Amino acid sequence: MPVNLRVPQRAALRPVPGVAIGTAAAGIRKADRRDVLVLQLPPGATAAGVFTTNRFCAAPVRVCREHLAAGAGEIRALVVNTGCANAGTGTIGLANARRSCEEVARRLGCAPAQVLPFSTGVILEHLPMERLLAGIAVAVGGLGASDWLDAAEAIMTTDTVPKGASREVDVGGARVVVTGVAKGSGMIRPDMATMLGYIATDAALPQPLLARWARRVADASFNRVTVDGDTSTNDSLVLLASGASGVTIADDGQPGAAVLEAAIADVARELAQALARDGEGATKFITIDVERAGSGAEAAAVAYAIAHSPLVKTAFFASDPNLGRILAAIGYAGIADLDVDRVDLFLDEVHVATRGGRHPGYREEDGQRVMKQDEIRIRVLLDRGEARTTVWTCDLSHDYVSINADYRS
Amino acid sequence: MPVNLRVPQRAALRPVPGVAIGTAAAGIRKADRRDVLVLQLPPGATAAGVFTTNRFCAAPVRVCREHLAAGAGEIRALVVNTGCANAGTGTIGLANARRSCEEVARRLGCAPAQVLPFSTGVILEHLPMERLLAGIAVAVGGLGASDWLDAAEAIMTTDTVPKGASREVDVGGARVVVTGVAKGSGMIRPDMATMLGYIATDAALPQPLLARWARRVADASFNRVTVDGDTSTNDSLVLLASGASGVTIADDGQPGAAVLEAAIADVARELAQALARDGEGATKFITIDVERAGSGAEAAAVAYAIAHSPLVKTAFFASDPNLGRILAAIGYAGIADLDVDRVDLFLDEVHVATRGGRHPGYREEDGQRVMKQDEIRIRVLLDRGEARTTVWTCDLSHDYVSINADYRS
Repeated sequence: MPVNLRVPQRAALRPVPGVAIGTAAAGIRKADRRDVLVLQLPPGATAAGVFTTNRFCAAPVRVCREHLAAGAGEIRALVVNTGCANAGTGTIGLANARRSCEEVARRLGCAPAQVLPFSTGVILEHLPMERLLAGIAVAVGGLGASDWLDAAEAIMTTDTVPKGASREVDVGGARVVVTGVAKGSGMIRPDMATMLGYIATDAALPQPLLARWARRVADASFNRVTVDGDTSTNDSLVLLASGASGVTIADDGQPGAAVLEAAIADVARELAQALARDGEGATKFITIDVERAGSGAEAAAVAYAIAHSPLVKTAFFASDPNLGRILAAIGYAGIADLDVDRVDLFLDEVHVATRGGRHPGYREEDGQRVMKQDEIRIRVLLDRGEARTTVWTCDLSHDYVSINADYRS
Repeated sequence: MPVNLRVPQRAALRPVPGVAIGTAAAGIRKADRRDVLVLQLPPGATAAGVFTTNRFCAAPVRVCREHLAAGAGEIRALVVNTGCANAGTGTIGLANARRSCEEVARRLGCAPAQVLPFSTGVILEHLPMERLLAGIAVAVGGLGASDWLDAAEAIMTTDTVPKGASREVDVGGARVVVTGVAKGSGMIRPDMATMLGYIATDAALPQPLLARWARRVADASFNRVTVDGDTSTNDSLVLLASGASGVTIADDGQPGAAVLEAAIADVARELAQALARDGEGATKFITIDVERAGSGAEAAAVAYAIAHSPLVKTAFFASDPNLGRILAAIGYAGIADLDVDRVDLFLDEVHVATRGGRHPGYREEDGQRVMKQDEIRIRVLLDRGEARTTVWTCDLSHDYVSINADYRS
């Protein structure tokens, strides 16, 4: 039941010159659904990624980090499978991730270290290599049009809607495309990245610049979204620059750099919000703004305490303005010297609490009216400084329990 | 649907000589249910408490702290109401809490500072003082037999079962009683105490000693239980020593001190476990043992990451051995230098993962068998040191969502 999120129109996801896409239905976990994606880049393209901080990071994440370090970002292909996360799989898992890269490299005529592998799905199970290798053959055989809707569909797990976004910007008089896809619906509290996100441009960017942008873009998008507070073992966000447009951005100071980075950040934010809109069982999309905090970390602690509280999330599901639960979450967010008598709380434009207590003008029916909307903004003012942050999340419904109780069946 | 938890037998909750109990149905939130408790202590009795670390602590918690500091623990009465937490209520809430103490003091002939007030229920609403004061009159009028089952019933909110426990120990040849009650079912992640817990003994103890015991007992019981990770605004654990037995414990070194402290800790642990057994919507009682950790804090971080993961909790609800979710939670628990290749995981006696990967001998049907039980032990070995901890929790079911979506209706 995604919140104001539709399947993107195929034409709206602009092809990125230089990037070829192929998919396959390899039956890795379920029959008759796309579960393998191969994405090919031209010689000279660059790639940069940010990955999960989960210590139990998956085998493909370890291999991605190695290959990005070894190849200085001269990446020629990505290979992604769903249905199996290849996490908690020890040395066998590492060997399987490497084997996938070798297979792609052999078929495309590049080095295995120029291939980045990604997996998503069930943890603690091994990849079915025979099916995966067969799927890679099909996907490579079908490489062609840069069809990003196909790519978005091929990486879905519990997602109910494929997620893609696209922008076209003018960089120094030339047209540059930015298109990205992402997947994720549960186990979402990306910490330095999302479940899986890939954003490509046809501009040329040196790898160190792309790496800096990847970090900044992740911090302003995927690192601001949470569904259930569970940081995945496989979170990965990758930026790709094919260079096919002929436009080169050499450094941040160059005219056009800011425009292009903003377009990439815009695509990333739209994709990140789509994760929460399609959060498992979501019926409400919730934006949490924490303002006047003493530091960014403090603002984030308060925003995530609210976003992760099962009591807050179930109240939103019920459209019940039981808003004291938000104050309780602020109170246990870990700010030892918080003066609660300076805290104000708004729900959209409704002033719920002031100076730590119920606002004298607050009427239950006003809270109720906002709670019934499918897009709601919680605004907290701490009166401690000038830092602020925004986090996007969703409510906690019966369907979240159903989906996760039945995930593997 | 409490897990292996029955209504205590009235006779099993031994009266504590010196302690009188009175209750009333004041209609504070719902009609025809006990919602006021007054507990009277004899002159010379001592009391000590530990309270929530939530910065949005309720008005009664602030008054309790004041009165315990001012009266050096010479407390003569406790007054408790359910239905309204008197939290997020500003100066009006403080005045109402003080007014309750004054009313009890006037009726019992003691000073207001010798009365401790407690509230539990909805946050951000004011106490209905007329009904509360009328309820206090009824409860004081009924003070008499030390009937702890009445007390347990009077403090329930979403609890489905009243919670009490009792022990009798021999201290230096004399018989000493320890009896306690607690309430709590949701918004449970006590941090220095539980929702509400009261444990009384008829031994005499100096207040500083009782205060030290309160802290130690809380840390080994209520501070080890969680339902939904939400630390309440009203958490309070209070130890009471009436002295009516004639047995005095002056310090920790005295013969019998260890026996009595163990009995109190035993009652506290039984009550704390009862909170998780009766956790909102609970169908499973889960014990999480984290062993061989580098420090107690590290062990607790891992245990709580597992205990709070909605994905782990829904898998337990479904009896689905999707145990990679436990590894993922260990991985994001915040131990930056965790070597996952040294982590082992057991479910009861079933060895699920070894050295960070699936155990070669692990069979899905063994995991399935344990998951179907209503009492399950998760055991994590980190291989980093000798510290360990235990946390008790429950699963996350449809009923948790239903209960909290409808809490105020």
